[in-house]
Amino acid sequence: MPIKQIPDIVVGRLPVYLRALSYLAAEGIQTTSSHELGKRLGISAAQIRKDLSQFGEFGKQGTGYNVGYLREQIRRILKVEREWHVILVGVGDLGRALAHYGGFVDRGFRIVALFDSDPAKIGQRIGDLEIMSMDRLAEVVRERGIQVAMVAVPAAHAQKVAEDCMAAGIKAILNYAPITLQVPEGAFVQHIDPVTHLQRMTYYL
Amino acid sequence: MPIKQIPDIVVGRLPVYLRALSYLAAEGIQTTSSHELGKRLGISAAQIRKDLSQFGEFGKQGTGYNVGYLREQIRRILKVEREWHVILVGVGDLGRALAHYGGFVDRGFRIVALFDSDPAKIGQRIGDLEIMSMDRLAEVVRERGIQVAMVAVPAAHAQKVAEDCMAAGIKAILNYAPITLQVPEGAFVQHIDPVTHLQRMTYYL
Repeated sequence: MPIKQIPDIVVGRLPVYLRALSYLAAEGIQTTSSHELGKRLGISAAQIRKDLSQFGEFGKQGTGYNVGYLREQIRRILKVEREWHVILVGVGDLGRALAHYGGFVDRGFRIVALFDSDPAKIGQRIGDLEIMSMDRLAEVVRERGIQVAMVAVPAAHAQKVAEDCMAAGIKAILNYAPITLQVPEGAFVQHIDPVTHLQRMTYYL
Repeated sequence: MPIKQIPDIVVGRLPVYLRALSYLAAEGIQTTSSHELGKRLGISAAQIRKDLSQFGEFGKQGTGYNVGYLREQIRRILKVEREWHVILVGVGDLGRALAHYGGFVDRGFRIVALFDSDPAKIGQRIGDLEIMSMDRLAEVVRERGIQVAMVAVPAAHAQKVAEDCMAAGIKAILNYAPITLQVPEGAFVQHIDPVTHLQRMTYYL
């Protein structure tokens, strides 16, 4: 199937569908429908059918979706049937929690290197990994061909860290610093800032 | 100004505008424009003007926006000119990082109570707060009239925890468990799952 230009908002829903399918699979459920998925996700069945139809024909009218098959197809579309190596920059409280988090590996991501600028932290170990100096970032990223970084440094340092990452070859940054990062064309950034989510809800309260 | 129905996607951008305005204010910048904001945020100037115009007239053609005034107006629109009390449920690695995080208070949120189901953690202190048993959640939420919760428990427990929270009076949940929570009409949930963000980027790599 030739890849056409898919709206990013549709791409953004695929990981949520994938996560739901993985839960269904773990529950031993073998077939599902856009209605069933929609109920779990608070998304209309029509929206789910429309989103998935952008990528191909995954279900049959009346019989629904095969959970395992659809899951594999979405994993391939999102390119997470492989394992992406990820660096983590900034090993404060949050960075430490991310380094310990067990939920990355079975969803396509493995943290393979930790960096921090604090001399007191360099050389410390978290699990199998040793915290390295920022000086070594470029070398590690280049040698290992790493394209994905998680950035959990203070806001004041985040833009500079992002630029260092991209200069070394990083293409995708998950940014936890509460600041919007500017990245060049061809690089990708996603932001996680709990306060923006909280504020989006208090508007309605 | 009468409040009309604003698309949620517009509401979702206001916290990002607010964050940028707060940085400008901290840098001592007193006026800005939709172009300047747009450049910082990777959003078109036209989009910013259109979003803000849904809530009123905040700038003058040619002179731009007064940073302090616009910031105060958005704080009021998002209802974060006040301080929201928040409970945190689940004090594992991530919960601990959230409890230590210093970035909530000056943006409208204060964690005032911690809960966990692990008897070994109950009674431990993080800063000024003591980790309490889940049994006490309903009483604390009701007595203190708390409406906002952060949930950082394992996926398998998250739906039950959310239901307990809502039964006690919580109206808005920031969910860190990697599962889509089902909440009734009139309640709000936002999800933070780093893997969905990572997968949204690997699609493009």
